[in-house]
Parts: sequence; structure tokens; C-alpha cells
Amino acid sequence: MNLVLFAPDELDRPLPREDRRAVHVRTVLRRGLGDTFDAGIVNGPRGQATLTALRADGALEFVFAATTPPAPPAPITLLVGLPRPQTARDILRDATTAGVAALHFVRTDKAEPSYATSSLWTSGEWRRHALAGAEQAFDTRVPEITHGRPLAACLAAAAALDAPAPGAAPAAVSLRLALDNYESPQRLGALEFPAGAGLTLAIGSERGWSAAERDALRGAGFQFVHLGSRVLRTEAAVLAALAIVRAKLGLM
Amino acid sequence: MNLVLFAPDELDRPLPREDRRAVHVRTVLRRGLGDTFDAGIVNGPRGQATLTALRADGALEFVFAATTPPAPPAPITLLVGLPRPQTARDILRDATTAGVAALHFVRTDKAEPSYATSSLWTSGEWRRHALAGAEQAFDTRVPEITHGRPLAACLAAAAALDAPAPGAAPAAVSLRLALDNYESPQRLGALEFPAGAGLTLAIGSERGWSAAERDALRGAGFQFVHLGSRVLRTEAAVLAALAIVRAKLGLM
Repeated sequence: MNLVLFAPDELDRPLPREDRRAVHVRTVLRRGLGDTFDAGIVNGPRGQATLTALRADGALEFVFAATTPPAPPAPITLLVGLPRPQTARDILRDATTAGVAALHFVRTDKAEPSYATSSLWTSGEWRRHALAGAEQAFDTRVPEITHGRPLAACLAAAAALDAPAPGAAPAAVSLRLALDNYESPQRLGALEFPAGAGLTLAIGSERGWSAAERDALRGAGFQFVHLGSRVLRTEAAVLAALAIVRAKLGLM
Repeated sequence: MNLVLFAPDELDRPLPREDRRAVHVRTVLRRGLGDTFDAGIVNGPRGQATLTALRADGALEFVFAATTPPAPPAPITLLVGLPRPQTARDILRDATTAGVAALHFVRTDKAEPSYATSSLWTSGEWRRHALAGAEQAFDTRVPEITHGRPLAACLAAAAALDAPAPGAAPAAVSLRLALDNYESPQRLGALEFPAGAGLTLAIGSERGWSAAERDALRGAGFQFVHLGSRVLRTEAAVLAALAIVRAKLGLM
């Protein structure tokens, strides 16, 4: 946790002793009365928090002073076939850290249907992993996240894929790329990105795309690309593809 | 486990029932008598194994037929400041999957000394994670791995960094790059790689390089590069940097 993030309505009340952020401030950062730490408001400014009181019940009182507005998000939308929950946790955290504007976990023909009903999604646990990813990145921005829509519904609303995220400028050119290690003749690393490009990157479930999904992706203007001959775990493929794309966008 | 790997001396004896590979063949691949599965010899050929007997004690007898010699390893040597053991496990697996010729975990000024004496290293557990990485990649090659040498000793033997790995051709040009998000003016993604380049990539501990280490790296011909403004976990930085480098080498 390089940055301690708060929701706007958390700024005017003490942080309970057992809150993970209070534990972090006390035991990892070792801050005491009058000390400051790097903090931010989710999707808002970064700044400094100052501890103004340590209450008898262990809660921390603090004031937050904003210093830096959030940078616009990278023009990257990620579609991921619903993976097993542990993989989804890693992707929620690591894709947020690497930096995307939106992250849609979609139902696909070859994904286990039970993955969509995991407690990761039903309990709201997923939010915590995205927050942890932003805190790691030292950024207040948390991507727009959806889960459980069918791929087809997501593609039918494809105009939305190219819409700029809150705080972002519209992309001059919108690319749509789908990873497919079986069908694609083209390396992601070999693609030329036009200046000002934004992109949507689709990554299948562990078992890949069905023939119907490949047709639907082609119909929606997606180009297929691959990551070479080595078979990566889904979470590693997401991070590797994001790194290559961010390098091409001049961000990494 | 996309490929079941064996040491050469394991080919002429039954695989015990409780061996993780036997469990995988029986319960995940669901193979029975006469069935085949993808297998390989560590640092040797890939091919097919055929189950020839299911013994009363549950052990599997098999024969292996080689079909494909191993591809040469990518000309990438990775130096990583000794990280906490869970991070090292992820790097052992994911860097092997992504593909490197050698992987050296080195002691650095800012690394916790206790990390070097973790049971990960003292028990030999580390080998298992590298094997799992190769099995995931569908490759028999396991990188050369060392752990616990000081960075300075590794740099003093720097000629060895540029030596081709077993099975690899010598690189036409050897690059030396060190990740440093604080000191570097240059993005990794902006570097030009000459054709036929091989490279050594150094990634510090969680707390980065000391001033003396920066001098030593510069003295050994390392250029500093960064991965942008977002702060990645060490294991994510390793994978992101490898993906960008492999894309530039035409491999991803």
C-alpha cells in the first residue's frame, strides 16, 4: 500500500482501529500523532493525511489535504473471460496497478458457469482487490469494473468500449485486439500503434474462445494477436499484454 | 501443467501414485492404460508418454517417445534482488514461463538478509516452482538458476552474463539494462534493440538499489530504464519488463 485510499464520505469520521488502513498506518508506516502519510480519495486527488488524534478506542482521527489531481486513465479497456476466482483476484489487482480505464469480466462459452457466482463477486470482495491495485500503483483511479455480462452483450454495446473513461480525452483511433494463441498469425509486439490510439483488449477464458465468439469478435472489428509460442497463465497473459500495449502507447 | 516433465533418470522407473505428476495424469488428464499425454525431459526433447501399466500399488508405468528437440532459450539473463519468499516463488514460476536463459537472485544492500536463508532456498523447494513454470510454458527448458550471491560478485563475473546459455547461439550485441524507477530518464519501451541482441536485465529489491549498487551497475555497463510512473510489485515488474523485452526481440 503505497497510497492510502479513502472514499469521499470516509474523510469526516475516524478510521476504526481494525480497519486495514489504520493497521497499515500504525504498524507498517509507524505513524503517530501529528505525522503525515500519502493518501488520496478514490478517483479524486492525492495528497497528505495528518493524524490529529489517537482515540481511546484505537480509532485514528486525521485531516486530508489534497495536493495533486488524478492523471487521466490510460485509454485501455480490458475484456477478460470470467476466470477462476483466484485468477480474477490477481487480475483485479494487477491490471489496476498496471493501469486500465475499464475492466469487464465477461461470460464466455468455455468459461465455467460457476465462476460467475463465486463469493468474490456476490459478496463485493472484488472491490477490495481493485483498490489494493490502485494503492500499489500510487494512483487514486480505480477502473470501471463489470462482471458477468455475456461477451455478446458487451460487444453489442461496443460503442461504449470506445467511449473515453471519466477524466480521459477521446482517443484519435480506436484499436480492438483479441488475444488468441491458436488462430492468430500476428504477434502483439509486431503491431504498429497509431499516435493517439486507444484500445480494447480482449482475453479469453483459460480454454480460449469458441468458434462463435471468434466470429463475433471479428464482426465487432477485433484483430487477433498472439503472445508467442509459450503458454502463459491467464493472469500472466493479461499483465504481459498490458505491458506491451502500454510500452507502445508510450506509458511504460 | 501443460507438459509433464521428467528428469532423465525417472524414465526407467514407475511414477509413484502420490507423485504430483501421477495425480495430474490420473485426475486432471484422466488418462488410463494405453493413453498418451504430452511429456518431456528437463532440458531435453518433448514427446509423448504412453501409460503401459497401472500397478497394484497405484504407480504408473509408462514409455516416453521423443518427438521434438528443445528450442534454444531466449537470450535473456535476469538478475533480481532477493525478494521475500512468496515473491521469489512467483518470479521462479512466471519468469520461467515467460522464458529466460538464466535467473540469478542476488543479495543487495537493501534486501532483507533473512530472505536468503528462507526454506524456499535451503530446502530446494525453489526447483519445483521453476519446473512448474516450464510445464506451464509447454517447454522443457529450465533456466540456469542461482541464489544468494552478492550483486557485486555477479557483476564481477559479468563476462558470464553474456555467455550464451546451453543450446543458444551467441548474441550479436549484448545489452545490459537495470530497472530503476527513481534514477532513470529512459522508458524501457522507448529503447531500440539492435537485431540479434541478447540482454541482461537487473531488477532491484523492493526497496531498490543503493547508491553504491547504482555505481557498480553503471561501471558494469548497465543502462538504467524505467517502467513508467506506476509502482508495480516486484513480481509484476519482472513480468512486465520481460514482456516488453520479448516483444522487442520478436518473441511476444
